[in-house]
Amino acid sequence: MDLQTYLRKQQQYIESALQEVLPPSDGPTAQLLKAMRYSVFAGGKRLRPILMLAACEAVGGNASQALKPACALEMIHTYSLIHDDLPAMDDDNFRRGVPTNHKVFGEAIAILAGDALLTEAFRLLSQPDQTLAAQVRLQIINIAATASGWGGMVGGQVADMLAEGQDNSIDTVNFIHKHKTGALILAALQIGAVSGGADPAQLKHITTFGQSAGLAFQIADDLLDIESSQEQLGKDIGRDQQRGKATYPAVAGVEESHRRATQLHAQAIAQLDSFGDAAEPLRQISAYIINRKL
Amino acid sequence: MDLQTYLRKQQQYIESALQEVLPPSDGPTAQLLKAMRYSVFAGGKRLRPILMLAACEAVGGNASQALKPACALEMIHTYSLIHDDLPAMDDDNFRRGVPTNHKVFGEAIAILAGDALLTEAFRLLSQPDQTLAAQVRLQIINIAATASGWGGMVGGQVADMLAEGQDNSIDTVNFIHKHKTGALILAALQIGAVSGGADPAQLKHITTFGQSAGLAFQIADDLLDIESSQEQLGKDIGRDQQRGKATYPAVAGVEESHRRATQLHAQAIAQLDSFGDAAEPLRQISAYIINRKL
Repeated sequence: MDLQTYLRKQQQYIESALQEVLPPSDGPTAQLLKAMRYSVFAGGKRLRPILMLAACEAVGGNASQALKPACALEMIHTYSLIHDDLPAMDDDNFRRGVPTNHKVFGEAIAILAGDALLTEAFRLLSQPDQTLAAQVRLQIINIAATASGWGGMVGGQVADMLAEGQDNSIDTVNFIHKHKTGALILAALQIGAVSGGADPAQLKHITTFGQSAGLAFQIADDLLDIESSQEQLGKDIGRDQQRGKATYPAVAGVEESHRRATQLHAQAIAQLDSFGDAAEPLRQISAYIINRKL
Repeated sequence: MDLQTYLRKQQQYIESALQEVLPPSDGPTAQLLKAMRYSVFAGGKRLRPILMLAACEAVGGNASQALKPACALEMIHTYSLIHDDLPAMDDDNFRRGVPTNHKVFGEAIAILAGDALLTEAFRLLSQPDQTLAAQVRLQIINIAATASGWGGMVGGQVADMLAEGQDNSIDTVNFIHKHKTGALILAALQIGAVSGGADPAQLKHITTFGQSAGLAFQIADDLLDIESSQEQLGKDIGRDQQRGKATYPAVAGVEESHRRATQLHAQAIAQLDSFGDAAEPLRQISAYIINRKL
């Protein structure tokens, strides 16, 4: 398979689906929808949806079964970015090379656009739909909510804030990465597998893959903040260091971070053996992410 | 029935359930849970959960069937209050007589506590549970998400902000009330009915009841801001007027607002005729709210 062609195809597939589930609106809520759409269509790489569709296919499903859940998870991811960028949080002016939501729409609308995207994700997952059985859809909602809430992403964000400027241990960094970013990537993979009709053994392999790969992706991301140029990254570089963020390179050093990412990635890939060719996209995508090109 | 005894009993019932579904936590997320619990247990009247249980009983169900959904909706209501109070929004220092969430925990944690409560509501609604069938639980999640998101509560909040200081029509005020507060009250009643196994005719009566009663409650609330003392209200009074908020009395006058609230309430109560004695709590609670004592 040609990875670039595959990624472009999947990105377009997800892009059209997002346009369909989140159309513009007029009336008194036009401004809100505009703010929601601004960040959803601000050039995201669609990493989580792509991983979800790939996991769905790896277990023998058809990618279309995971398409709506993929849109929902991208909305959750986007809400988290909007809130993370707020002045009271990371106070970022740019994201993916364009002004952050609150810079364009103001803080109040940015907070509400985030709230509305999070809520819309759960509305989408619970809309009447013939693709997936009710029991499966409840399981998907539960995976998404657990990964996003206080025991997942939001908990990780709080731990990240509290760790800023502290003398942090590797355990703290692992906790933050596992919750703040790892939980949603793992959820994407699990939801893909569940949508594709995974049996318990398949779900277990995808879960172990996602735990290792998720941490590897985040270490790669930490390294990216140090090693890339502003042009490549589309946002300010070296910001993690300036803020004394708890990152892998800050605690373990750059070299050890590279070694650990490579090791975790190998562990992850090994989990995909039983899936054969069906997991080839998942293998290639994760290698590509680790090489910090996505 | 003695309404005071009934309300106390239901409040205690809901209080224990909330304590059970939202226990304190230690570890890195302790501060987040503390902030979430601070606002959930800040003396709320539990209006929406009480209405939900009453609607469940009105259609012939047992209140216990709606207990978890009632907790979930109270979490959604609480998140909306935390975010509404933020400096970028209404910038309120007190709520129910105690400092607002961001005054105690800071803005960042307040935003995240709101996010986590909203997410936790959907986690709770999707947790494995034998009380309600999967199809019913999906319907409940869909009602809650639709009422809370851009087409409901958040949309109403945006319309409310944009209307501030403007020369508003009664249509604008109706739109704001219907969405900002009415949608969640209607959702509480509908979820109660659905949890109690309502047939389509029963759900229709409860829906029409909720549409009229919800607006009546909000007009009563607008009047409360003008007519009560700070001590009664537990927050600053006259704030709506100071801000040029789009309220019923501001647009239609105080006298017309009283008349309209009474008329809507009568229309609402008429919808409950077919339920007989089972709807007595619902009748008495709404009369009590309209008389602005709850």
